[in-house]
This record gives sequence, C-alpha cells and structure tokens, in this order.
Amino acid sequence: MDLNTEILPAMPGQRLARGVARALRDMGFVTVEELVPAPGLRVDLMALGPKGQVWVIECKSCRADFQADRKWQNYLPWCDRFFWAVDADFPAELLPPDSGLILADAYGAEVVRMGPETPLAGARRKAVVQGFARHAALRLQALRDPAGAISAWA
Amino acid sequence: MDLNTEILPAMPGQRLARGVARALRDMGFVTVEELVPAPGLRVDLMALGPKGQVWVIECKSCRADFQADRKWQNYLPWCDRFFWAVDADFPAELLPPDSGLILADAYGAEVVRMGPETPLAGARRKAVVQGFARHAALRLQALRDPAGAISAWA
Repeated sequence: MDLNTEILPAMPGQRLARGVARALRDMGFVTVEELVPAPGLRVDLMALGPKGQVWVIECKSCRADFQADRKWQNYLPWCDRFFWAVDADFPAELLPPDSGLILADAYGAEVVRMGPETPLAGARRKAVVQGFARHAALRLQALRDPAGAISAWA
Repeated sequence: MDLNTEILPAMPGQRLARGVARALRDMGFVTVEELVPAPGLRVDLMALGPKGQVWVIECKSCRADFQADRKWQNYLPWCDRFFWAVDADFPAELLPPDSGLILADAYGAEVVRMGPETPLAGARRKAVVQGFARHAALRLQALRDPAGAISAWA
C-alpha cells in the first residue's frame, strides 16, 4: 500500500486520534473512538490496556478547540489516566501541567507525560470495560452486516 | 436497501452466525465472531448481554459439521450459557438435550431452549469480557485504519 496516497480522516482531531490509536496499539492498547461513557459525555478516544488499564485521550487540534472544551474534567472519573493529544504546533503551555500529554500526528504519536493515575473502583471499572466492549462490538457488527441494522423492520 | 440482492456470507455456518447475531442484538446482546478465548479454542460467536452475560454459540450447518466437533465441551468454562445454532433442516435430535438451542437462518434466529446457566467466576469473567473488548476493538481498528496495520514498518 502506498501510504502517500491513503485517505486521511477529514477532521484534524480525527487525524490525531488515528496516530494516537496506532501508537497505543504498538503499546498493547486497543482503542475506540467517540465513546459515550455516560449521557452527555463523549470522549475522543478510549483505550484499554493489556492489564485492563483504561485511558481517555482528548485530541485538540488548536487553541480554540481546547478553549471550547468545558467538559474534560467530567471525563476523569471514567478512566485510570487522562491525556491530551496535540500536534507539534499546539501551544502546550495552555494545557493543565498535571495531566498526561501525547504528541501526535496522523501517522503516530509519543507519550510525553503520563500524568497521575487515579484507578477506577471495581464496579465502575467493570461498567466501563463492558461499555467499551459493547461500543466496539456494535460498531463492528454494523460494518460486517450493514443490512442487519434494519432487519427488525425489513 | 434491497435485501434480496445483498451479499450473503460465503459459508453456511457464517450465514447462521449472522442471523443469530441479528436476533441477539434485538435482545440487547452484542456479538463477535471467531473469538479465541484461549489458545487452541475458537468459538463461532461470543455474545455479551446487557447485564454482562457471556454466551457462546456454535453454529452447525449439517450433521457432518456437528460430528466433526471434538472441542465444544472445552468452550463451556468460557461462558455462562452455551448454545447450538442450527437451521430448520438440521436433525436436532443429534444435539445434547441439555444444551441451549437456537434455530437460525441468515436473516434471524429464535432461542428455542435456554440450557443450564453455569455462571463464570469473577476473575474468569473479567478476563473474558476484556478479551471480548480487545477482540472487537482490534478488528474495528483494522477496518477503520487498514494502513495502520503496517505503520510500524512503513
């Protein structure tokens, strides 16, 4: 495959998410995009690690994108670690210094700062991992059987 | 979409799996195909229910397909309930009378017999649900970013 002619995701944030997902997979983490852990919350990327670690990564393409985010602190109770993912041009000094930081582009990423670990309690962890599994499996099923989405009305 | 012209899965077992997956989704279960719960084991369909129930469904297209299966009892420790899925022409009297039974075709399915419930212990359940999540997310990522599968060598 010629990587120079591949199709990139349309939105800058999605391109960052793709690079982060690739890098995390190389670290043994699987990821899903646009997961809703609770009504009204939608995280850019949720990752599940080889030991069951749950990470949330918010991808910010520019200063305005970051400054418009009023919800990020609400994501903290749904993960063991929280990260921002930004590209090399992002003014990183805007970001809270005590949260995780990933430097990314569409092709890969690097974890620059881990940030604190705040482990999920058992019941919450169980619910989050089940939610992750359901989200991933439903999207996969919609792709492998698109006609099935309307089977109930066919 | 015209369901009469849609492409059916190539293998009879896969067509049954598709119908079962559709019916289970209508019951609130998400599914993945061809999951490997442990080395040397590969289940046709694993389902995760709204309350975290784990079901395994083996799809048998004909008598020979069933009689060639020497492994099905090894699947029992990996699920809360086990089911056979067969079509209306299958000689159902061949199947163990105390296991679950689903009548299926490529378009849907019906649970005919539930079979016994043997709940997974906590640690095993946690591992199975995490394995389900990883399997689904990895397959989904391979579909949404096929070039990423070779990113490490590009």
